[in-house]
Amino acid sequence: MSLLAVGTLAYDDVYTPFGEVKQIEAGSCTYIAMAATYFAQPVQLVSVIGGDYNDAFLADLERRGADLEGVEVIPDGKSFYWAGRYHDDMMGRDTLDTQLNVLADFDPKVPESYRNTDYVMLGNLTPSVQSRVIDQMAHRPKLIALDTMNFWMDVALDDLKEVLKRIDVLIINDEEARQLSGELSLLTAAAKIVEMGPKILIIKKGEHGALLFEEDKVFYAPALLLAKVVDPTGAGDTFAGGLVGYLAATDDLSFENLKRAVIYGSAMASFVVEDFGTRRMQNLDREQIDARVARFVELMNVSL
Amino acid sequence: MSLLAVGTLAYDDVYTPFGEVKQIEAGSCTYIAMAATYFAQPVQLVSVIGGDYNDAFLADLERRGADLEGVEVIPDGKSFYWAGRYHDDMMGRDTLDTQLNVLADFDPKVPESYRNTDYVMLGNLTPSVQSRVIDQMAHRPKLIALDTMNFWMDVALDDLKEVLKRIDVLIINDEEARQLSGELSLLTAAAKIVEMGPKILIIKKGEHGALLFEEDKVFYAPALLLAKVVDPTGAGDTFAGGLVGYLAATDDLSFENLKRAVIYGSAMASFVVEDFGTRRMQNLDREQIDARVARFVELMNVSL
Repeated sequence: MSLLAVGTLAYDDVYTPFGEVKQIEAGSCTYIAMAATYFAQPVQLVSVIGGDYNDAFLADLERRGADLEGVEVIPDGKSFYWAGRYHDDMMGRDTLDTQLNVLADFDPKVPESYRNTDYVMLGNLTPSVQSRVIDQMAHRPKLIALDTMNFWMDVALDDLKEVLKRIDVLIINDEEARQLSGELSLLTAAAKIVEMGPKILIIKKGEHGALLFEEDKVFYAPALLLAKVVDPTGAGDTFAGGLVGYLAATDDLSFENLKRAVIYGSAMASFVVEDFGTRRMQNLDREQIDARVARFVELMNVSL
Repeated sequence: MSLLAVGTLAYDDVYTPFGEVKQIEAGSCTYIAMAATYFAQPVQLVSVIGGDYNDAFLADLERRGADLEGVEVIPDGKSFYWAGRYHDDMMGRDTLDTQLNVLADFDPKVPESYRNTDYVMLGNLTPSVQSRVIDQMAHRPKLIALDTMNFWMDVALDDLKEVLKRIDVLIINDEEARQLSGELSLLTAAAKIVEMGPKILIIKKGEHGALLFEEDKVFYAPALLLAKVVDPTGAGDTFAGGLVGYLAATDDLSFENLKRAVIYGSAMASFVVEDFGTRRMQNLDREQIDARVARFVELMNVSL
């Protein structure tokens, strides 16, 4: 099955205690697409870039199975740029610079050839932009997943609540779940959020794993223990890309398969943080991914 | 199998957003014993109290299967007292008052009848006091588990390192593991801590569950999602009591059984936080405990 992915194609500068990188290709759409193409192809991108974007990097994405028809190029514009510095304990980070550039006026255009796609991943963007993507679909997709962040809860809560009514899977972190619901307990938070629209909720807890909720069912996937996290940027997008890519590939929305998708997403995220940007994800094969998935399953295997 | 438990029998005042309690029976030995007696009996206590301690509460502990021969009574002394207030988000707490009282001069005396016990749980105390308990055992127990805290790493690190060489299982939280090892990654931290002596390490992560390490094996037990945490005091001691009580009862130190013990400890801790002090743990039965254990297993059940 094909997958439609909306998000940013960006340049990042990233500083961590382990080093720094400048002007690397990043952004939610990049991470989602690179993770998802390991499972589902084509991954149809909807994004916007300036004339400055790296053609070779785009060609590589295409070679992996990305469809770039929906990537709008503004020849005299500059691509979205973000710079951040991680703290010494890697637990937090400070944004040093954000330049929206071509993203400021982004009006997503879904090409005709994407409009019947059954699996849609809406990366973190202005909620009204996410809505405009759904508007353009020819029919209701089988599954619409959405990522967002606390910033939109602060400045565009009504728009966010509108788009939440139209999706199936919400993927957010624990802080965001608490803010969106106004509840401390993630169990109570989940119940409130599900009432807002998405029948499936995934709460990411970083190094503590991820929770999957659907109706009265809950699943807890641990995070893999890593000796060294070099760069956590993009981990959440990679998780989402692996997860939705796996669902599109298997075309099975049972709770059992959702659990597997969470593990595959977690496995992809566990790779990407081992190096800067998308580097670690560029040369994987399915055998390596499956071996890592097996480590997750082993980590949580118990019999009474 | 019997279990020897060392720790405090205390009075606590606890303030949380959900209410407050004063002068309730608490302390590490209380929580350990009450959890452990659901699995193993007798639980032989080594502790010290003043003449002010509640006889009816002690009689109840005895009825549950606690052996109080090793509880020293200082008739004109006052029992250890602690008061604390939890923050509104229940994530942190401030100590309002600590009065060591009879604990200040605690010199543990292990009764003759305890000295051949095979399972020993050393609750959080001055490391040299923990060592003096081991000194008095007639032979090397099958399993010595130890709890400690960052305070002892600050003020008695050498003594702590001495006692770590003499134990089998160390039970600490993630912050303490990072401080003890000087490592951020829990994987690297675990490797360093195991070199200090304990061949089995359990890292508690509160609402994020617990990790079990032995040699190259790792197991991740989630925490149960609870709608309401009323009072987290004693959760760590209850976890340890359930865990070591289960091990003493089953007398099986295989990694598979250690995993089960972590789940049983987690289940006991998930009960105790639902009410103040030991209240929620006072009237459980094995069926309720097994049902909760089943919920943990369900939470992490996945098949590829």
